[in-house]
Amino acid sequence: MRIAILLFDRMTALDAIGPYEVLRYAKDAEVVFVGKRKGEVRAGSLGLVVDAELADVPAADIVLVPGGSGQVDLMTDDEVHDWLRRIDRTTTWTTSVCTGSLVLAAAGLLNGRRATSHWLALDQLPQFGAVPTEERVVFDDKYVTAAGVSAGIDMGLELANRIAGDFAAQAIQLGLEYDPQPPHDSGSPAKAPAELVANMRENSRFFLQGS
Amino acid sequence: MRIAILLFDRMTALDAIGPYEVLRYAKDAEVVFVGKRKGEVRAGSLGLVVDAELADVPAADIVLVPGGSGQVDLMTDDEVHDWLRRIDRTTTWTTSVCTGSLVLAAAGLLNGRRATSHWLALDQLPQFGAVPTEERVVFDDKYVTAAGVSAGIDMGLELANRIAGDFAAQAIQLGLEYDPQPPHDSGSPAKAPAELVANMRENSRFFLQGS
Repeated sequence: MRIAILLFDRMTALDAIGPYEVLRYAKDAEVVFVGKRKGEVRAGSLGLVVDAELADVPAADIVLVPGGSGQVDLMTDDEVHDWLRRIDRTTTWTTSVCTGSLVLAAAGLLNGRRATSHWLALDQLPQFGAVPTEERVVFDDKYVTAAGVSAGIDMGLELANRIAGDFAAQAIQLGLEYDPQPPHDSGSPAKAPAELVANMRENSRFFLQGS
Repeated sequence: MRIAILLFDRMTALDAIGPYEVLRYAKDAEVVFVGKRKGEVRAGSLGLVVDAELADVPAADIVLVPGGSGQVDLMTDDEVHDWLRRIDRTTTWTTSVCTGSLVLAAAGLLNGRRATSHWLALDQLPQFGAVPTEERVVFDDKYVTAAGVSAGIDMGLELANRIAGDFAAQAIQLGLEYDPQPPHDSGSPAKAPAELVANMRENSRFFLQGS
């Protein structure tokens, strides 16, 4: 099972690494990190390595597009859109995390489909033909989109569940000791203090493009 | 606030990237990824970039040691142990995720201290003088250890809480949309099916050193 994960400058590393750590343990997975040019991209203070260029990876069972502030540049990147449309014809699952769904949508792959994104970016989906859906992981046929950043871990587990079954998904969860115990319960706009949600909405440009 | 995160070959990427995505948003954080040699290390199919060598980073407010199968090589690595002992004299928080705690312990930094690790490695801590503690995040004075892999996210949030306060920790959690909804509740040996736990204990070498 070949999994192609797109890397680009000013992406959010956890968007890609969360599902990577899950899916690498699912059924004979072979993961390749793809980008426009081989070599380093920067995700804030972290350098990640692109091992294969877009043209080197014309097909995959799963393709994954992460988000992060660099997503903005990808919205008008024909080379990336062409690659996504081409690889999509070969995939079993076409997926995104966080604002990666906006890139899938801009490439024309989410027309009329239910999709999610980072909660601060959800309202941008209709401009690109997708139907915003407030769920943590949204499946519409083979198109799977996860909400902000850490939602990619849950998306990975949902996919592992469908691909390899309950027992495998439980084993991966236990292997990653994914038994979340955050000190607060403020991980969604419905649960966080209203003042905080309002503050972040007002400053959404900082949060979505600040890194 | 300077945060030094150790990178090494055959580490688990999520051990480092989970807390990185949290702590980078805490109070004027400046994160540096450190290793034995500048350039690429491999975390499975993923290349991560070491930007600074050990000698370049003699001091930090927070040091973080991730785990993964490459931890085994670090157990007898005097250069890494010397660096950890030296930087520890400058830190406010000395931290680890997953089997990274075994490296801190091997460097002599957890003598008599309560600590945790990946659940499959917890029983190794006493050999290196630490007191195994079955909690997701363990604070003993300035020494903070997280359980397996994904526990680093919770550790990051606990640290953000203490460093920057409730509101900042809640904002980071909301920014990362950390509202976990895994398809199963099998993230700890106490919650997973007993058959699965037994199976993984029997094959722990595969799970701890398989990547």
